[in-house]
Amino acid sequence: MTARSARKRLQPAERRVLILEEALRLFASRHFSVVTVRDIALVCDINVGLLYHYFENKDDLVRRALGHAIEQLVAGYEERRAAGAEPLAEILAWLDIHMELAPTLALMVKLMSDYASSGLRDAELDVLIAGFYGREQQLLEGALARGVASGAFAPVDIARTARRIGLMLDGIFHASASRGDDRIVADIADLADFVRELLAVRSVSGG
Amino acid sequence: MTARSARKRLQPAERRVLILEEALRLFASRHFSVVTVRDIALVCDINVGLLYHYFENKDDLVRRALGHAIEQLVAGYEERRAAGAEPLAEILAWLDIHMELAPTLALMVKLMSDYASSGLRDAELDVLIAGFYGREQQLLEGALARGVASGAFAPVDIARTARRIGLMLDGIFHASASRGDDRIVADIADLADFVRELLAVRSVSGG
Repeated sequence: MTARSARKRLQPAERRVLILEEALRLFASRHFSVVTVRDIALVCDINVGLLYHYFENKDDLVRRALGHAIEQLVAGYEERRAAGAEPLAEILAWLDIHMELAPTLALMVKLMSDYASSGLRDAELDVLIAGFYGREQQLLEGALARGVASGAFAPVDIARTARRIGLMLDGIFHASASRGDDRIVADIADLADFVRELLAVRSVSGG
Repeated sequence: MTARSARKRLQPAERRVLILEEALRLFASRHFSVVTVRDIALVCDINVGLLYHYFENKDDLVRRALGHAIEQLVAGYEERRAAGAEPLAEILAWLDIHMELAPTLALMVKLMSDYASSGLRDAELDVLIAGFYGREQQLLEGALARGVASGAFAPVDIARTARRIGLMLDGIFHASASRGDDRIVADIADLADFVRELLAVRSVSGG
């Protein structure tokens, strides 16, 4: 409805984003392997030729739809994270942006999961996904290391704690889908409390 | 290959289990909605008529394939959990059986995830999935409550801690799929360490 009524006014960059968002939604609601370029053009209310003006082919759309979601996440995180922020604030900013972008991230997570189990392999997509998780681990490890070094955090195992936080985020999105209980925001808020407990409460007794 | 060579020797109960295992594998490797009864018969090397002798229809196969995985998990847990076991041993038994059945559970998790996002609704399947997660939460809460009451565990929030452990298990299976790093067993072993830390280390300072 919005897509249709706004159709004429869209600038190319806006249309491109709209296509990526609709594509991600479609890839996530069905198995991405059965979605065609034509299906995506249809939900965007544009003709297939125009879609090919923006994107090379379906593989390109899959990569860019995922890339767009990751970019939103990273950009939102960078906005929240002021230069020289406290390590705890950095970790909480990462959780916070996951709450704000929860609907998009749920689609992203579904697409990654389907791709992983599909048996299909796309080297560019593999690099994108590995880069995303690598970046998360690095970001969490960096903040944890600085917090531990400054004495603000208890002396936790940096790499293991970073992975545990990342796994919990994955679990929250996954559980919301599998359990169908739509508790993403509440669960991430609880994870923020948990992280404070793990890092801060211990620093009281450990310092 | 195994299915083919063992074909003649199978008892009905064995064949039924074999069909369920092949069906789960197929449902998880594609989107379950595109898998047909004929596809399943084909991988089991039996004719469709025989398959209908065991199962009503595809919906029945989906439910029973999932139900079979859940039963294996619960039975394996009950075996590990001696009557009157320590609360910590009970929680670790739950983690342990997830390690042992990791390959099957990864398929189960994928099917539940696809079902959840498919938009299809099956009341029986919903009951099965809700029952599974409800049982996990109850089992963890029970062990945590007894451990806290006896003073063996730190006085953690029972419900939140149980959900956190459940979410971490979900995250581990999900991450293994999305990240493609196949660290399920190592991650569950780390979760066991983490649970000990959360419950036991605190009881030292809290007791």
